Amino acid sequence: MLEQLKHIVCKANLDLVSKGLVVQTFGNASGIDRESGLMVIKPSGVDYSCLRPEEMVVVSLETGETVEGDLNPSSDTPTHLVLYKAFDSIGGIVHTHSLYATAWAQAQCEIPAFGTTHADYCYGSIPCTRPMTVEEIRTNYEANTGYVIVERYDSARPQESPFVLVASHGPFAWGSTVADAVNNAEVLEYLARLASETLHIFRGTKPMQVPLLDKHFFRKHGREAYYGQQR
Amino acid sequence: MLEQLKHIVCKANLDLVSKGLVVQTFGNASGIDRESGLMVIKPSGVDYSCLRPEEMVVVSLETGETVEGDLNPSSDTPTHLVLYKAFDSIGGIVHTHSLYATAWAQAQCEIPAFGTTHADYCYGSIPCTRPMTVEEIRTNYEANTGYVIVERYDSARPQESPFVLVASHGPFAWGSTVADAVNNAEVLEYLARLASETLHIFRGTKPMQVPLLDKHFFRKHGREAYYGQQR
Amino acid sequence: MLEQLKHIVCKANLDLVSKGLVVQTFGNASGIDRESGLMVIKPSGVDYSCLRPEEMVVVSLETGETVEGDLNPSSDTPTHLVLYKAFDSIGGIVHTHSLYATAWAQAQCEIPAFGTTHADYCYGSIPCTRPMTVEEIRTNYEANTGYVIVERYDSARPQESPFVLVASHGPFAWGSTVADAVNNAEVLEYLARLASETLHIFRGTKPMQVPLLDKHFFRKHGREAYYGQQR
Amino acid sequence: MLEQLKHIVCKANLDLVSKGLVVQTFGNASGIDRESGLMVIKPSGVDYSCLRPEEMVVVSLETGETVEGDLNPSSDTPTHLVLYKAFDSIGGIVHTHSLYATAWAQAQCEIPAFGTTHADYCYGSIPCTRPMTVEEIRTNYEANTGYVIVERYDSARPQESPFVLVASHGPFAWGSTVADAVNNAEVLEYLARLASETLHIFRGTKPMQVPLLDKHFFRKHGREAYYGQQR
Repeated sequence: MLEQLKHIVCKANLDLVSKGLVVQTFGNASGIDRESGLMVIKPSGVDYSCLRPEEMVVVSLETGETVEGDLNPSSDTPTHLVLYKAFDSIGGIVHTHSLYATAWAQAQCEIPAFGTTHADYCYGSIPCTRPMTVEEIRTNYEANTGYVIVERYDSARPQESPFVLVASHGPFAWGSTVADAVNNAEVLEYLARLASETLHIFRGTKPMQVPLLDKHFFRKHGREAYYGQQR
Repeated sequence: MLEQLKHIVCKANLDLVSKGLVVQTFGNASGIDRESGLMVIKPSGVDYSCLRPEEMVVVSLETGETVEGDLNPSSDTPTHLVLYKAFDSIGGIVHTHSLYATAWAQAQCEIPAFGTTHADYCYGSIPCTRPMTVEEIRTNYEANTGYVIVERYDSARPQESPFVLVASHGPFAWGSTVADAVNNAEVLEYLARLASETLHIFRGTKPMQVPLLDKHFFRKHGREAYYGQQR
Repeated sequence: MLEQLKHIVCKANLDLVSKGLVVQTFGNASGIDRESGLMVIKPSGVDYSCLRPEEMVVVSLETGETVEGDLNPSSDTPTHLVLYKAFDSIGGIVHTHSLYATAWAQAQCEIPAFGTTHADYCYGSIPCTRPMTVEEIRTNYEANTGYVIVERYDSARPQESPFVLVASHGPFAWGSTVADAVNNAEVLEYLARLASETLHIFRGTKPMQVPLLDKHFFRKHGREAYYGQQR
Repeated sequence: MLEQLKHIVCKANLDLVSKGLVVQTFGNASGIDRESGLMVIKPSGVDYSCLRPEEMVVVSLETGETVEGDLNPSSDTPTHLVLYKAFDSIGGIVHTHSLYATAWAQAQCEIPAFGTTHADYCYGSIPCTRPMTVEEIRTNYEANTGYVIVERYDSARPQESPFVLVASHGPFAWGSTVADAVNNAEVLEYLARLASETLHIFRGTKPMQVPLLDKHFFRKHGREAYYGQQR
């Protein structure tokens, strides 16, 4: 069942390690098959060094139940399911505790758009969720993590910032495929570090001017794009 | 004598190098065989590049004497012995001068729990010992290093923070096995860096809310744990 | 056509990756053949992992048109052309979003000459362009990026600082060849990081004294040079 | 002539690269044969990738003249000669522009002894030279660099701090052999970074207490030493 997607999702999880985005067993990647309504995700707390495609867990988007797999799915599974339901254009999700993105999440600060590197990927600040309530933490914590993310977006936004910071926790990134989501998780970590280093040089740095933000974002995204080989 | 433990302890010492936790000959790892009351530890000041299992030194927990081995045991041996006596649930200890953990120790600051990465491993701030008195430094310095650590804990705590900062010195980490202790030493270094980077972004960052700390710590530790494959 | 230059430019682009100066597809390198008036540059948005010499694009310095190549040239092509026209002594140009240089560009701060490492390569501060006007951004953005760079220099300067920061964007570096430009891009990243770390230690650090700047710059550059094997 | 020393000095120069202490052609290492009064040093401005023992240059300690070798000796040769004359117990010298040590030199700040990692190698702050006068810069600059270093020491000190920062420039390190000097250059870079990270956590960190400094320095150095396998 979904053999190809299992391979892709397994590889995406291993890429998180080789790109330096996870330490220990932190982090997970998933992909979805929209047609069958099935999500493939990393098992919970398994050592990355011996992760194999056949260990990936298949979960139903609708019921949240494990459909195939001997191991428990990632404990963050309910968060992934909420995001797939809310953002129907996305095909893959990545969660990490990567250093700089997690530091911004712990500081509960949105990452300002300081330059064109940022504008090439994200239209404005990288959002950070509000703190969760005690009730949201105690009951259905993982699903509620998804809901506080969705709350920061409207239906148009998942493309405008393909990553988000969960306050006191860490980042989630997504994309049209899980490989794309891994890519975005790597970009996010770079942007987070770049913004930190910018503030260390000059604490009073202001966000970039909006016409420059427009120019770079729409040079790569949307109908007017002319970057790369797309036209 | 204890051939398997010597192999494991030797490997643990070499893992400290490959994980980037030691420079030069700083740092040491030990393991204990509770049944025989014998500790296996790295020899003092030996180059890691040629460390072999048969060079490990066997020391009696009760007398502190070398029972087997041609080389002097690590100069920190008395610290290890004090910790093994005080914390009877631990099976391995690691001491490093890893960069960020040592910086926090030098600043004599406890590392606040700023997020869930921290809460997954440690219930609250990572403790830092008080400065040692002149008397404690001049006489039995290494054993007294162990006593100031133990002073910061009560019998329940070694699991709640499996690592500690010794003021003006550096970190010690422990675990149920020496491999587990190495793991915790790596986690500590990551948490120390994460907390530094968080403060660089926003100096006024407050510790995370307690319900979230509870949620993450007890999701992985204790009877209610549901992370990983344990149930 | 220009087979040798294509090889050299392709290698220069790959060197940017191996030197850690680019992430993703950010960055590009070009070389010029002054005799034929042709520039060779990386194609736009192509993955570095499979970049080959035959994919390099040949562009006319005079008309800006693609003379050879199946792919679109780098979107920054007009910037390169403006620089080659304004600085007739240079043979290669590199653009990156390398971490520390980009952070200084985002902070819109010139990098002060704090020490001899800097003085060995650059005579004074590393310049940063003024912000572009809305008009310059909306029309001919990439060419205007070149013009705001040239505006900061007079004809003598390209040797005095072989790199520049474009405000809210990132660095450009050049040299007598594209290999030399790659080298300078690497030096710039080191100088940018060195200056950041210096300010972190002491925020009030002043630029170095001028006689020492003179000594080091002219020890390596110009007719009185005695560094290396040149005399 | 001095074939063995040439091999050792060549290897020491290459070790500076593999340890990440030099970029480009910055940096140089030398060794001395006290019996013959001859120093072996790296040639000036030569690429490290192709450095071979037979390219090392032999220089007379007394006259400063090249005794053997086809290439110019390092431009810092006069600095090395002054240090060998002033400190007769040393057998090797290393000069680098390593990142954190150079940042401290640029900030013109001595590196305080914040902890035991530092105390294991250096008895007190790591010294920084005074700025050089215009006269010292313009005439015999490289020799005068040596004299301002020596000025900061008395005959007893070279062992107490086997490294020094030259203001607005970078570090020099030495040892009983050139391999020992490379080691000390690596330790210096680590201590410099450790001190920076400590100040970033708590700007008001005070130097460590003197009894602890005494304990660690004399545990490894002098007649009472008991660290390692020396007794």
